[in-house]
Amino acid sequence: MNKKVAVIGAGNGGMAISAYLSLSGASVNLCDLFPEYTADIIKEGGIKLVGVDKTGFAKMNLVTNNISDAIKDVRLIMIVAPAFAHKMIAQECSKYLEDGQIVVLNPGRTAGALCFLNEIRKNKCTKDVIVAETQTLIYSCRKHNGFTVEIKGVKRKVDIASIPANKVGEVINALGVYYPQFEPRESVIYTSLANIGSMFHPAPTMMNIGRIESDKNGFQHYKDGMSQSVVKFIEKLDEERLNVAEGFSVEIRSIEEWLKDSYKVSGKNVYELIQSNEAYRGVAAPKTLDVRYVKEDVPTGLVPISELGKIARIPTPNIDAVITILSTLYGIDFRKEGRNLESLGIKDMDKARLMHYFKTGKP
Amino acid sequence: MNKKVAVIGAGNGGMAISAYLSLSGASVNLCDLFPEYTADIIKEGGIKLVGVDKTGFAKMNLVTNNISDAIKDVRLIMIVAPAFAHKMIAQECSKYLEDGQIVVLNPGRTAGALCFLNEIRKNKCTKDVIVAETQTLIYSCRKHNGFTVEIKGVKRKVDIASIPANKVGEVINALGVYYPQFEPRESVIYTSLANIGSMFHPAPTMMNIGRIESDKNGFQHYKDGMSQSVVKFIEKLDEERLNVAEGFSVEIRSIEEWLKDSYKVSGKNVYELIQSNEAYRGVAAPKTLDVRYVKEDVPTGLVPISELGKIARIPTPNIDAVITILSTLYGIDFRKEGRNLESLGIKDMDKARLMHYFKTGKP
Repeated sequence: MNKKVAVIGAGNGGMAISAYLSLSGASVNLCDLFPEYTADIIKEGGIKLVGVDKTGFAKMNLVTNNISDAIKDVRLIMIVAPAFAHKMIAQECSKYLEDGQIVVLNPGRTAGALCFLNEIRKNKCTKDVIVAETQTLIYSCRKHNGFTVEIKGVKRKVDIASIPANKVGEVINALGVYYPQFEPRESVIYTSLANIGSMFHPAPTMMNIGRIESDKNGFQHYKDGMSQSVVKFIEKLDEERLNVAEGFSVEIRSIEEWLKDSYKVSGKNVYELIQSNEAYRGVAAPKTLDVRYVKEDVPTGLVPISELGKIARIPTPNIDAVITILSTLYGIDFRKEGRNLESLGIKDMDKARLMHYFKTGKP
Repeated sequence: MNKKVAVIGAGNGGMAISAYLSLSGASVNLCDLFPEYTADIIKEGGIKLVGVDKTGFAKMNLVTNNISDAIKDVRLIMIVAPAFAHKMIAQECSKYLEDGQIVVLNPGRTAGALCFLNEIRKNKCTKDVIVAETQTLIYSCRKHNGFTVEIKGVKRKVDIASIPANKVGEVINALGVYYPQFEPRESVIYTSLANIGSMFHPAPTMMNIGRIESDKNGFQHYKDGMSQSVVKFIEKLDEERLNVAEGFSVEIRSIEEWLKDSYKVSGKNVYELIQSNEAYRGVAAPKTLDVRYVKEDVPTGLVPISELGKIARIPTPNIDAVITILSTLYGIDFRKEGRNLESLGIKDMDKARLMHYFKTGKP
C-alpha cells in the first residue's frame, strides 16, 4: 500500500508532483475535480516532465475526476490546489477517507490543515487521519500544455506540520521516500503564519489598482509595484503577523529574514532585498483584478491571520483594514467567506484549547 | 467699519480674494503668518490680478504677519488657508477677536467652523462672534509669482453655513456686497459633509502609491488614477458620507449629483462623469506622497466625517480603513492629530446636543 500515492489537483503543482512521484517509483492516482484539467493527460497516457529535476514521461496508475477512486487504499494523499479549493476537496473526501491515511496540503496557506480537518469532521468523517500542511509548494513550475510541465526550481527546505502535531514524524516518513526536503515543525501555527504570499500579494495589488486598470504598458509587480512606501506598509503588516505568532509563543521568520534565507539577495532593508532579487525581476503585475493575489491570499491568508489574532488577543488593525477595503472593492465579504473562526470550527476556543486541538487533533 | 475686510492667508486663494475685494472697493488687511508669503506683495505694494474676473493692480490697506493688526476694527475676516492651519490661526486670533466679528473659513473642509470656534473658546475668547464655513473655495486660481495671481474660474454658487446657524443671514449680508454667489445652508453639517475633496483625494492616492513612487513618466490623477475599481470604491466611501449626513437628517448631494451640477459632463455612472470632465483633463497626479491630498484631506476630511458618524451612530468602515492605512503609511496618527471628537470639543455630546450647539453656538 505504501507505493500508492494520490495527488488531488492537476494544475502546475499537481502535475509536477504526480510526474515526479511516478518517475520516483510511486503508483500515482491523479485526480482533478474538473475534467478539463485531466483530459490531455488521459489522452496522452501520462505527463511529460521537463526542467531541472527528474525528467521523462511519467505514467499514472489512474487519472480520474472521482476522488473516491483516487484515494481508495492509498496511504498518502497529496493535495495540490489553490487554497480556496481545500474546503470543497475536504467535503468530497470526507465520505471516502480511511483510517491511517495521511493528507498533505501543498501548501496549506494559513489554517489549511485546520480547515480541511474541520470540514471532514463537519461532514461526519470520524476516521483516524493525519492532516498536514506545507509552508509552500516544493517546486516553482509551469505547465507548457495540458500534459507537459516544467520544474524550474526545487526548494531546498520546506516546513511541514500536522494535526495532531506529534504525528508529523509519520508524515515525514511517508514523504521522505520521495522528498527529503521536508522539515518538521512543532505546530501548524508555524506553517500557517509563515504565509509570505499574504504579505506580498494583496496590499501591493490594492496600492496599484489604478495602474493595473489604466496602464496599457503594464508594469512589474515587485520592481515597480513594491515601491518604498508600499514596502514600508508591508513591513507593518508583517509586524502584525509576527505578533500573532508570538501570541502563540511560536517564532517565525520576518519577511526580511525569509528573503535572505530564500534568495541570494543583498540590501540593507526589505525594499532593497526585494529590488535586488533576480527571481522577482520581470514578474508582471496582474492586468486585471481577477487574481489569486487577492481572491486566494485574502480569504486564506489575511483573514485567518486576523482571526487567529483574535484568539491570541493580538490586534491586527492594518491587516483588517486591507481586508475591509478589498472586500468592498471586490464586492465579496472575504471575512465571512474566508477562513474565519466560525468556519474553522474554533469560534469558542481560547488559546490553550486551540493549542490542545492542534496537539491532539481533538477539538 | 463695513468696508474693512481682513484676509488671513496669502496663498493662491488668499491673494485672489484680497485682490478682488480691494478692486471691488474694500479696504483689505492681508495677513499671512509666514513672511515668505507676504514679502513680494509688500515689495510691489499690492497684488496683480489677472484672469477671468476683475483684473488690475490691487493695493492693500495693510500687509502684515501679525493677526492682531490685521483683524483690528474689521467686521469680516476671511480665512483662506489649508484646513490643517485653521486651528493655529484660531489660536492666534483668540486674544484679538472683537464682539460682532464674522469669521468665514474659505473653505472649512469638514468641521472647520466647529474647530475654529472650539479653539478660540479653549483659548478663553468669550467674544460674540459668528464663525462660518464655505463648502469650497469660490475661485479656481493659481499664483504666477509672489504678487501675481490668476483667477481661472469663479463658481456660480457656493454653500455657506454658520455657527450659530441662525446668523447665516448676517454673514450673507456682509459677504453679499462683494460676492452674491454665497447660498445659506441650515447647518454646518451640510457644508462640512459636502467635502468632495475627502472623497476624491486620499483613496485614489492610496490606490496609486506604487505608481506615484515608481512611474517616472507620471500619470493623471483623474484620468489614469481614478480607474473603474478606484471609482467604485469611492462610491462606497460616498455612501458612508451620505449616511452620516442622513444620520443628522441633512440631505447632501452624492458625488454623482455634485459632478453633474458642477461641470458640463455626461455619463451614465460616476466613472464616466469623471472621465468626460474636461476640467479634470491633464490634472497631474502627485509625484511624491508629501501632498495635501492626504495630509489635509485625511485629518480635516475623512477623520471628522468618521467622528461625526460616531455621534450619529453611523458606521463608516471603509473611511476608517483608509484612515488606518494612510496613518500607517505616513507614520502619522491622523485620527489622533486630526479633527476628532475630543479636539473638536464634542466628545461627550449626543446628536441632539451637537445639533443644539450648531444652532446656538453654545456647547
